[in-house]
Amino acid sequence: MRKEVVVVIGVGGMGQAIARRQGAGRTVLLADLNEGVLESLATSLRGDGYDVSTQRVDVSSRESVRSLAETASSRGKVVQMIHTAGLSPLQAHVEAILRVDLLGVALVLEEFGRVVADGGAGVVIASMAGHMSVRLTPEQEAALRMTPSEGLLELPFVRPDAVTNSGAAYGLSKRANQLRVQGASAAWGERGARINSISPGVIATPMGQQELAGEHGGMMRAMVAASGTGRLGTPADIANATAFLLGPDASFITGTDLLVDGGVIAAMFSGRLHASAAS
Amino acid sequence: MRKEVVVVIGVGGMGQAIARRQGAGRTVLLADLNEGVLESLATSLRGDGYDVSTQRVDVSSRESVRSLAETASSRGKVVQMIHTAGLSPLQAHVEAILRVDLLGVALVLEEFGRVVADGGAGVVIASMAGHMSVRLTPEQEAALRMTPSEGLLELPFVRPDAVTNSGAAYGLSKRANQLRVQGASAAWGERGARINSISPGVIATPMGQQELAGEHGGMMRAMVAASGTGRLGTPADIANATAFLLGPDASFITGTDLLVDGGVIAAMFSGRLHASAAS
Amino acid sequence: MRKEVVVVIGVGGMGQAIARRQGAGRTVLLADLNEGVLESLATSLRGDGYDVSTQRVDVSSRESVRSLAETASSRGKVVQMIHTAGLSPLQAHVEAILRVDLLGVALVLEEFGRVVADGGAGVVIASMAGHMSVRLTPEQEAALRMTPSEGLLELPFVRPDAVTNSGAAYGLSKRANQLRVQGASAAWGERGARINSISPGVIATPMGQQELAGEHGGMMRAMVAASGTGRLGTPADIANATAFLLGPDASFITGTDLLVDGGVIAAMFSGRLHASAAS
Amino acid sequence: MRKEVVVVIGVGGMGQAIARRQGAGRTVLLADLNEGVLESLATSLRGDGYDVSTQRVDVSSRESVRSLAETASSRGKVVQMIHTAGLSPLQAHVEAILRVDLLGVALVLEEFGRVVADGGAGVVIASMAGHMSVRLTPEQEAALRMTPSEGLLELPFVRPDAVTNSGAAYGLSKRANQLRVQGASAAWGERGARINSISPGVIATPMGQQELAGEHGGMMRAMVAASGTGRLGTPADIANATAFLLGPDASFITGTDLLVDGGVIAAMFSGRLHASAAS
Repeated sequence: MRKEVVVVIGVGGMGQAIARRQGAGRTVLLADLNEGVLESLATSLRGDGYDVSTQRVDVSSRESVRSLAETASSRGKVVQMIHTAGLSPLQAHVEAILRVDLLGVALVLEEFGRVVADGGAGVVIASMAGHMSVRLTPEQEAALRMTPSEGLLELPFVRPDAVTNSGAAYGLSKRANQLRVQGASAAWGERGARINSISPGVIATPMGQQELAGEHGGMMRAMVAASGTGRLGTPADIANATAFLLGPDASFITGTDLLVDGGVIAAMFSGRLHASAAS
Repeated sequence: MRKEVVVVIGVGGMGQAIARRQGAGRTVLLADLNEGVLESLATSLRGDGYDVSTQRVDVSSRESVRSLAETASSRGKVVQMIHTAGLSPLQAHVEAILRVDLLGVALVLEEFGRVVADGGAGVVIASMAGHMSVRLTPEQEAALRMTPSEGLLELPFVRPDAVTNSGAAYGLSKRANQLRVQGASAAWGERGARINSISPGVIATPMGQQELAGEHGGMMRAMVAASGTGRLGTPADIANATAFLLGPDASFITGTDLLVDGGVIAAMFSGRLHASAAS
Repeated sequence: MRKEVVVVIGVGGMGQAIARRQGAGRTVLLADLNEGVLESLATSLRGDGYDVSTQRVDVSSRESVRSLAETASSRGKVVQMIHTAGLSPLQAHVEAILRVDLLGVALVLEEFGRVVADGGAGVVIASMAGHMSVRLTPEQEAALRMTPSEGLLELPFVRPDAVTNSGAAYGLSKRANQLRVQGASAAWGERGARINSISPGVIATPMGQQELAGEHGGMMRAMVAASGTGRLGTPADIANATAFLLGPDASFITGTDLLVDGGVIAAMFSGRLHASAAS
Repeated sequence: MRKEVVVVIGVGGMGQAIARRQGAGRTVLLADLNEGVLESLATSLRGDGYDVSTQRVDVSSRESVRSLAETASSRGKVVQMIHTAGLSPLQAHVEAILRVDLLGVALVLEEFGRVVADGGAGVVIASMAGHMSVRLTPEQEAALRMTPSEGLLELPFVRPDAVTNSGAAYGLSKRANQLRVQGASAAWGERGARINSISPGVIATPMGQQELAGEHGGMMRAMVAASGTGRLGTPADIANATAFLLGPDASFITGTDLLVDGGVIAAMFSGRLHASAAS
């Protein structure tokens, strides 16, 4: 009797909350680029009764992602994969963001789409930034959905010289995640599995707190103040939405994105943000 | 001690499933244009132990919707409102569709946004058709979000002469529902409440079965065959998504749309539908 | 790719609600003694988009139960089994109740414990009557847990001459269900599966309504009036508890009973019922 | 618009997991005897986006518990109360255990039963030890349910000289918790609220790990090995069960206990434990 395996890629604030929410009674395979953080979380989870193993991964390398998928598959039935890894615009420059946030997700969707179990499901953490970015043309969207992964960074509108700054690279990557999940839903469906994305708003993770303290912090606070809920998200808000999408009550949901942003995008598009930011 | 009130507008297949899922231990106020169907469901629900009252409503009339909201409010705390009423392109012509499916939702959002309880939540059933329709300009989207309800049917691109057939009227209305929910999330938020929409795919309700038997039935089956799940939805799939959005695990979700379509839209945009429909 | 199979035994009010709640996207195998009711529910579920097959079963016959388990197993992975079949004291005499309600559950637990899939789960619908009955000795409880099924009806305190009326037979059977689930949790656990029972209170199913109209109806209403919730249960209340016990959030729960009775048993044991019944 | 308040008493491993699971979007009032631990968790939760306040409480003092309930009530609608505080047999002697684990729960149920909001709910963390202890007589059970709190420690079978060791005091207290919840469901019900208990098995909290390392650790491991799930519980297992009992799908559940023990009690009563412990 092989145990069910749940893979969590990226062990920041959301990855931790999700690992705790999904991992009980299963083998949890944690993956991150940073081995120190990885071992620290593994130790904490083991203390809480989880069965944990770890593997370093560089999501921008197909070889590294494939190795992770093979490890997962060797441990048991890969019933869940949650991808939370990513670089924020504060942490990296255009090229690194495109490689990790855009290409990385494409590779993970492809390699885990080859090992996910019948009845399994995956969630990719995108961002509400994917709902904000400049409108892409239908042709550009199609290209982001279906271009073979290795060609993604060669698309004219994705090449570093076409993407002017790290914020734009981030928004483009996160929009690409949503589209890539649409494209991947076919391969996942052929295996009897589902794949969706979640687009979080401003979440009070360490990364989120860093952004709130940064140069765009004032704007972010104005966005939150103008939103329907008027509050920051917690990692648990994202873990709860993830649990729903991975769980039995969402068996008819695949290839879609769920915006979990407290109402910020709705406020922006309704023109409320400007009024609020100005006051 | 006043009981909590849950209002279900529209008592077709989805309305029934949602009323059963949400109504236990509360006062259920059912509303529909058709009094016969209304009483029939009320009798069935009472037999199953629900506390039910009914009121006829014409959602295209502000007076009628306001009366419903007042009735709800007089019965207790209006903790949930689910709007499932609508006309399908098979059932009605352009004008009726725009009046019921587009204007009707705007009126319901507005009137219930005045009575919903602190901590309450609402869900509007839109449609995946709202994800398919021709792209609107940002100005048109803004107009659908924010134009006062009484002016909606006067917008140039909404006027019956600009909408060529009932299918187009339906798609436009359902896109408008999603946008209107964004716009309404501010007023609902000011009362401490949340509002979201669900966009169902092909659901095996009586209305859905009628469409599957109609002239577009073959295309609909091809869409389902090409989708990630490869199946029709059940009313329970929509009731489960509704329960999530209304429940405590979605307290950071407002002003958004959740596509529950088995992967059809993802298949369409990934070009899989054509291949499948041709085979 | 074989579909997941969910088996629902007994298609009364609770069986129907549970089949709708658990069956979407799976093969639903419905079983009941009454073929007319079986086909009628199957037709209704197919209309709602479920993939349904049926098989007549006499739960008091090992051969019949084994045949059902084999059918289930031949259709795919048996991920869930929910046993709702039973006779009420109004419907049958002592012998029939013991054969169906006590022996039947033992046979179902045993035969499905041989086919349930790794990661699967089951729920047996017992009754709050199992919490009310005269206290059994530890030896009697042990006998009900562990005696081979074929010997259960031969136990001295279970033999028809020791059980004075159908109400006592019902209470004893339902207490036995809870104990048998404890005993069965070992075999189910060895397959990586879980098994639990639910003890409903007064539920507004057709069977429940019949009891409320019968000679004990007044006492039942007094019990409900004295309870913490003060209301009848709905089939959805039981379906929701079932969904929890079968689902991922209950992966550490096995071999236990969940009382879903609106607070009736608590009221009885707190002496509130007498006061209320007397007024 | 006053925010909803959730009160978590006891901030060990379970209290932390429950606070994170239930607290988003609400005011979280944390209470514990140990102010250092209290402030440490509050700081951590604030970093994750929660709105937190704290108050020191000695649950064995009515005055202290009442003051906590008054603080909760002054902050908003007290929609949830979760009591996780308690002393383990390793940590304390008979008298302290009876005062904190038995009397403390009675006081909390009583004082929060006076402030809980209409529609609210509470959960008391008991223990599987309450399912193991020597059988009480019906008269003793009745006394534990209904004796005024101040008289509980004066009951002949509760007096320190009648309780021979800290393990017995713990088991008696935890059984009393389950019974006291039954008794309290009337007062909570009159306010439109529900109250239940959870009886956890061996959970990998710091307290649980301490017990596993202690003199009874070997026996505890044998119990886990013999159980249906064969594993330790995680704090998330308890938080998930708590979320269910507090949530909308449990609106017909009050005055009951949910055993979340991985199947240990079932294994014990089925005689599997001895076999396993002996091997």
